Amino acid sequence: MSSSDRVLNAGVLGATGTVGQRFIVLLSQNPMFRIHSLGASERSSGKPYSSATKWKMSELMPTDARNVVVKSCDPALFAGCDVIFSGLDASVAGDIERAFFEANFAVFSNAKNYRMTPNVPLCVPVVNTDHYALIAGQRAEMGLTKGFIVTNSNCSTSGLVVPLKALQDKFGPLKRVVVTTLQAISGAGYPGVASLDILDNIVPLISGEEPKIEEEVLKILGGINADASACAPLSDLRVSATCNRVPVVDGHTECANVEFAGTPPTIDEIKQCLREYTCEAQTLGCYSAPAQVIHVTEEEDRPQPRLDRNAGEGMSVTVGRIRPCPVFHVKFTLLVHNTVLGAAGASILNAEYAAKKGLI
Amino acid sequence: MSSSDRVLNAGVLGATGTVGQRFIVLLSQNPMFRIHSLGASERSSGKPYSSATKWKMSELMPTDARNVVVKSCDPALFAGCDVIFSGLDASVAGDIERAFFEANFAVFSNAKNYRMTPNVPLCVPVVNTDHYALIAGQRAEMGLTKGFIVTNSNCSTSGLVVPLKALQDKFGPLKRVVVTTLQAISGAGYPGVASLDILDNIVPLISGEEPKIEEEVLKILGGINADASACAPLSDLRVSATCNRVPVVDGHTECANVEFAGTPPTIDEIKQCLREYTCEAQTLGCYSAPAQVIHVTEEEDRPQPRLDRNAGEGMSVTVGRIRPCPVFHVKFTLLVHNTVLGAAGASILNAEYAAKKGLI
Amino acid sequence: MSSSDRVLNAGVLGATGTVGQRFIVLLSQNPMFRIHSLGASERSSGKPYSSATKWKMSELMPTDARNVVVKSCDPALFAGCDVIFSGLDASVAGDIERAFFEANFAVFSNAKNYRMTPNVPLCVPVVNTDHYALIAGQRAEMGLTKGFIVTNSNCSTSGLVVPLKALQDKFGPLKRVVVTTLQAISGAGYPGVASLDILDNIVPLISGEEPKIEEEVLKILGGINADASACAPLSDLRVSATCNRVPVVDGHTECANVEFAGTPPTIDEIKQCLREYTCEAQTLGCYSAPAQVIHVTEEEDRPQPRLDRNAGEGMSVTVGRIRPCPVFHVKFTLLVHNTVLGAAGASILNAEYAAKKGLI
Amino acid sequence: MSSSDRVLNAGVLGATGTVGQRFIVLLSQNPMFRIHSLGASERSSGKPYSSATKWKMSELMPTDARNVVVKSCDPALFAGCDVIFSGLDASVAGDIERAFFEANFAVFSNAKNYRMTPNVPLCVPVVNTDHYALIAGQRAEMGLTKGFIVTNSNCSTSGLVVPLKALQDKFGPLKRVVVTTLQAISGAGYPGVASLDILDNIVPLISGEEPKIEEEVLKILGGINADASACAPLSDLRVSATCNRVPVVDGHTECANVEFAGTPPTIDEIKQCLREYTCEAQTLGCYSAPAQVIHVTEEEDRPQPRLDRNAGEGMSVTVGRIRPCPVFHVKFTLLVHNTVLGAAGASILNAEYAAKKGLI
Repeated sequence: MSSSDRVLNAGVLGATGTVGQRFIVLLSQNPMFRIHSLGASERSSGKPYSSATKWKMSELMPTDARNVVVKSCDPALFAGCDVIFSGLDASVAGDIERAFFEANFAVFSNAKNYRMTPNVPLCVPVVNTDHYALIAGQRAEMGLTKGFIVTNSNCSTSGLVVPLKALQDKFGPLKRVVVTTLQAISGAGYPGVASLDILDNIVPLISGEEPKIEEEVLKILGGINADASACAPLSDLRVSATCNRVPVVDGHTECANVEFAGTPPTIDEIKQCLREYTCEAQTLGCYSAPAQVIHVTEEEDRPQPRLDRNAGEGMSVTVGRIRPCPVFHVKFTLLVHNTVLGAAGASILNAEYAAKKGLI
Repeated sequence: MSSSDRVLNAGVLGATGTVGQRFIVLLSQNPMFRIHSLGASERSSGKPYSSATKWKMSELMPTDARNVVVKSCDPALFAGCDVIFSGLDASVAGDIERAFFEANFAVFSNAKNYRMTPNVPLCVPVVNTDHYALIAGQRAEMGLTKGFIVTNSNCSTSGLVVPLKALQDKFGPLKRVVVTTLQAISGAGYPGVASLDILDNIVPLISGEEPKIEEEVLKILGGINADASACAPLSDLRVSATCNRVPVVDGHTECANVEFAGTPPTIDEIKQCLREYTCEAQTLGCYSAPAQVIHVTEEEDRPQPRLDRNAGEGMSVTVGRIRPCPVFHVKFTLLVHNTVLGAAGASILNAEYAAKKGLI
Repeated sequence: MSSSDRVLNAGVLGATGTVGQRFIVLLSQNPMFRIHSLGASERSSGKPYSSATKWKMSELMPTDARNVVVKSCDPALFAGCDVIFSGLDASVAGDIERAFFEANFAVFSNAKNYRMTPNVPLCVPVVNTDHYALIAGQRAEMGLTKGFIVTNSNCSTSGLVVPLKALQDKFGPLKRVVVTTLQAISGAGYPGVASLDILDNIVPLISGEEPKIEEEVLKILGGINADASACAPLSDLRVSATCNRVPVVDGHTECANVEFAGTPPTIDEIKQCLREYTCEAQTLGCYSAPAQVIHVTEEEDRPQPRLDRNAGEGMSVTVGRIRPCPVFHVKFTLLVHNTVLGAAGASILNAEYAAKKGLI
Repeated sequence: MSSSDRVLNAGVLGATGTVGQRFIVLLSQNPMFRIHSLGASERSSGKPYSSATKWKMSELMPTDARNVVVKSCDPALFAGCDVIFSGLDASVAGDIERAFFEANFAVFSNAKNYRMTPNVPLCVPVVNTDHYALIAGQRAEMGLTKGFIVTNSNCSTSGLVVPLKALQDKFGPLKRVVVTTLQAISGAGYPGVASLDILDNIVPLISGEEPKIEEEVLKILGGINADASACAPLSDLRVSATCNRVPVVDGHTECANVEFAGTPPTIDEIKQCLREYTCEAQTLGCYSAPAQVIHVTEEEDRPQPRLDRNAGEGMSVTVGRIRPCPVFHVKFTLLVHNTVLGAAGASILNAEYAAKKGLI
């Protein structure tokens, strides 16, 4: 029996936070995983999950999590877990994730700490699973048999790279991308954004977000070097991002202007390219892989967060308003579910992929 | 006594609509004007303004408008008016505004119908009042002594051109501008945007808005031809606009990326340039001219619509997040009060300017 | 094979409206029904459902509805339907529903037109399915073999009567109820509430809603007369309702103050009573009957619409903040999903119940 | 020259908080006061107000406050102040306000700490300034010449008591009041309510709020005892309050059901009574006293927070939907600006009144 056929025991770090709660909802519906261990801060440890958590999901708390006793995030307490999902805050994720990695766990992280580390895959699972080739080197360096770290990207990056990857694969390198985001409040966690800051208002800054997008895109759309010891980010693409917080619960909207390095395709060719885009996670039959990676909408007032964020159970990206750009070649608007494909869902599909490839 | 010293009798067309209501609020506070006549559709005519109008302003309805009996929009009924403000919908504005113009009225219009007509000033009063030189030609062509039409621009255009004009005046021509807007619901009138479309949501389309911005900017930032018979729009600047509707009551936020044609200034030079920008309406002492045309904010999470839309009583533009752009030269975020500088307030200041210049 | 075991062909009238769209979503997930025919206004008829409809649900449009060609609402065109669900507007529902009834169809209506007709069940399916005894009389009067009309109640009434029924059954008659509602915008259809009326705002009126609640409660909590020819509304209970529209997409919140006619129970007895409440639709195994009719929450800041509206797939009522009332005996806050148990879901469960009882 | 004719030096405690910011806005517009000293926590002291404060008002920060250096809340540092306004949080207000009182300052407090102290006026300045008679006793007890404490009420109480007082004065004692509130987020301060709790949502609990309303109403509508040593709250009125937080920035909406102890007046008599209600602060010509204490609106969908909260510059209460109650005698909906009449504005008018009466 291959590892991909058995149910994997999942540990979730940062389980009581917003990303952690999304992990719980998604794992409880996923036949490949069983919720085994939940980790959080000392304040929560020792309590059943239901009382340790201020639940904020629209879905009811899954029954298979309610009574799990929360632990502190110590690898010694997570024996029996096949895979570790981390929804930890960046302020603590660095040390804890490293400890789990060194303790030979397969770690899937949402935190930013290791995203730009050269031998760590920064993986949007519908885009660049070829970066998993870095894992062998990670293990060799540390003398590990099973441990590794895979990170997923910033939530806005996750949406943006999907159509960009499709375009790059089909029409060759991109030259310049200008993107302006309208990001949902759930991306800031809880309590996160104060209501006085966002009711009848826009906040035109998300601290640290723009540089993340501008550099993560280059790594994800790039390749890896010849001996698979490090990633090889793109050096010829320039990206400029502007990020706004808007009064929307879930779903990031992104307005992109794109210039190709070579002869640009027509609008129809672009639409067809996006519609036809597929990824290896689909081919392998991963449970969370969306049937359609990119939904291209012809309705001129779409995508909209409330209506489109659940496309593909939150794992698809919806792209609309594909039209010529008077300054570059094409402009379009995309929508990504920021806590599914943009966070917990990406980690889970990353783990499914790793299991299918025999890495777990 | 010069015309600018007497109180002018104002007529308002489309007085019961959203723009019309803003006209009423602003005129009631303005010592240069007296609300004289109010025009609306046949359905409203004959009724006192207070009962003809579904009032939607946060300010209480001014007492000097409550009992004015609404008329139909027939020039013969507006004798005694020195100036006509039109908040009419584009579907009817074309014929009605022309009729008032031909009947020798000074018409200040918010509608799009005549904005791109070559001999009609498309005037943001803190930007391009030099286009008033077209008025002499308008009158000559029609044999009028007092009549003319001045339009103001689309609400998003109104905000964007202000810093662009300051930069162009100081640092020479611009080459490319990419702008993404987050526009308030009041811009769509009443009932306008359905609540099911905008609560917990973004609408990524405002029909017809993007081409307006892309072409109006060129006309406003351009000049007029040698014999002042027509405007001379810029031909070397390219503008790409993407417009979104967001759940904000008043105040359009705009994220702009700008490339200069020549050597770009530093960020500090740009800030200084914007801070020092002045316009002739200020010099002339127009009542509605803001003390500061552009507020440059150093707080990194500003401008915000709820906090900044009333800067300069809604007649200033607030610009923040001025920083280098990895793709072009500079990017920044601006905020404009869409129904004040972006609509009724601009018309009123246009009229004040015209009066100061002896055109009314 | 009993009728309840076969799949029933469903026709939906008013299929393109907000309630109609909810019918489509719920029916597509329900194994007891097959979407057979869709009716709407003349403007839509002849078009595939996907192009006739401005879809506003968060769920994607079900594939089994997309290509159904919309018909006009003529009974002759609905041959083959076992059951008719009406989401028609009250302005047209009266005549059309009557025509289907007279054409021998089983009609389940959301409109107000026949709610107070004495021999028509006004049925909240988790509360008063005993009123189905009126159907025999309906048929006899018209000489029909299969036709009848069952209505469901106003959306706010639907939520309120559930705990009231549980309390009345256990502790005897109620004397006085004061209820204030905070109702979601989806209850007003599309375009419905203008965004300028509800962003950063409350509308303290829902036209005609308060009398509906005040009289529908009496009919639903009452019985039927001896020969089952008419309902027998309560005459000793007095209800006072105040209705507000709030900026919430789905889910009506209702704050109730209740006085018992007799000795009041304790708060703990009330909680236990609500938790233990069951209904016949559950016993019969109806697909849409919630596992738990009433969720009693002990968290003091619940129920909340975003977090609790999907309890029991929208078919449960959540009741919280059960505490003594200084003026009456008890006060509490309840939440009902206004378009599920409060509208389309109630009709569907009503139909399931009728099928189980052999009435379809 | 009477004390009411000179400009008073004002100190503001808790000046950087939400209530403190409202004090700054209102005082800067008020000719009776000069902003003299600003106090806040140790963290802020020593900094200019503009840098110590995260400004959240829609009005720009007044220039006369920007450069005031913030102090710690020590009475010794406030020499030169004629009056002290406290916007302190209840957690620290008790000790600090007492220290200022004992240091012989006239203290006007928004905190709850001394509201129910028998010899402290709990004063809504358009309702019960007769309670100022308690001040002589306060001073005598402590041997003070100038010091006293006056508190204002909870923000929801402030709105509710205004029409209740008018009705009680005209038609005699009330017997029972049931009130349900829909309260704005600004009432919770900053950061206050998390956006994830209130976007597309209602929070049906405001901790501790309901008992405050239920007991404060009795004190405010009551009198004082014979020797003016203590207040004499009503004992025969019963009040039941239910409080909700709603997604509105400013303005509390309250739905009230009222029963009179004696023969109830007609609806028209009630409307006339409310319209004709006046208070002593008006008679004395206090600057902040509204021209009309109660605005009675006949428009059936009013009051609305966005449209009516600024009535009387936020110092009026708007009452609408006055209609018979099927359970009690009358029901109506009222709106109060929660940070003006409901907080800082009330304190300021209380101080104006005290000055007019020679108490400062």
